[in-house]
Amino acid sequence: MRTGRKSRRSAAPRKKAHRLPDVAVLIGSLRQNSFSRRLADAIARVSGPRLTFRMPDLRLPLYDDDEFRDAPPESVAAMKACVSAADAILFVTPEHNRSIPAALKNTIDWGSRPRGQSCWAGKPAAIVGGSIGLRGAAIAQAHLRSMLVSLECRLLGQPELYIHYTPDNLAALESPGTDQVLAGFAAKFEAWILHQSERRETRP
Amino acid sequence: MRTGRKSRRSAAPRKKAHRLPDVAVLIGSLRQNSFSRRLADAIARVSGPRLTFRMPDLRLPLYDDDEFRDAPPESVAAMKACVSAADAILFVTPEHNRSIPAALKNTIDWGSRPRGQSCWAGKPAAIVGGSIGLRGAAIAQAHLRSMLVSLECRLLGQPELYIHYTPDNLAALESPGTDQVLAGFAAKFEAWILHQSERRETRP
Repeated sequence: MRTGRKSRRSAAPRKKAHRLPDVAVLIGSLRQNSFSRRLADAIARVSGPRLTFRMPDLRLPLYDDDEFRDAPPESVAAMKACVSAADAILFVTPEHNRSIPAALKNTIDWGSRPRGQSCWAGKPAAIVGGSIGLRGAAIAQAHLRSMLVSLECRLLGQPELYIHYTPDNLAALESPGTDQVLAGFAAKFEAWILHQSERRETRP
Repeated sequence: MRTGRKSRRSAAPRKKAHRLPDVAVLIGSLRQNSFSRRLADAIARVSGPRLTFRMPDLRLPLYDDDEFRDAPPESVAAMKACVSAADAILFVTPEHNRSIPAALKNTIDWGSRPRGQSCWAGKPAAIVGGSIGLRGAAIAQAHLRSMLVSLECRLLGQPELYIHYTPDNLAALESPGTDQVLAGFAAKFEAWILHQSERRETRP
């Protein structure tokens, strides 16, 4: 435990507040029982209780400068508040037509406005995704990565998670045991969040 | 006018119907007076009357499999009908966060569903774009290109049009004269549409 210079040298051990990181999870598919949501739920399960996951609603109006220049709609404000309050962001994306879904792009565009009030800049973040195809959502993830770096998200580099949603893989996502791939990802992500966080705190 | 087999062999020169191509113009920015719209209008002006431009409304609901699986909303049906009836498509895009705007991605996703009823496959198409930055909307255009090739749009390769919206360039877009760059683009696009069209028709 680190202590301060002089006055901090009391006999009693100093008690430091610790807080487990909050993660805003942005799920690209709006479908209620989407594979993306099941993947997010599985990562949340293996991460608990060390990471707390919050999943804001991405059913936002389509971004339009004319209509919402002065006051963004309430749903947008709620999404931005959730992301801003979080210590990190997890993007879970399917692939729609060789890129990310419109709902996710819409969220990114809303979150970046107005100029100077982006909710993305400086946040530790990770991207995961999948599809029923062999290459998962690899192309969508690459598109998303290029956007988020420009938006100054601090992206986790490894491990990359490209999921092929086979019946076996989907069953593994929902099994009560701990999937080693997901657990490994969650551990690295947690370490990344703590490393990148400006407010590093003693862990329990 | 088409006639039966025998009657075609008349002495009089055969008269073929000709039809000037219709182009569906998809404007990525929803803003009423957006630079993208002004660019589209300028291309329409220099293309007339050889190309007819129709600009469907892209203020569509956010794509959601759950809500619209059975019956797509009316606005989506109208957009798809406009694109399906057109001989070609012109995509006019700004760049939002190093990709295409959510409104354009949403239109692409809607147009591609349901499976087997895509309005994109086989259509001659071109991409133009711009921004107030020096490199215009180059990255968004590259993203869009990769999506549209996969969707089997028949994309015009050259000329590429990357517009830097300076005050001078914007004034040029609105001047009554013929901008040579735009006119050159329009002529190549028209030739591409005719070349790619399954129904090639005699031109006047």
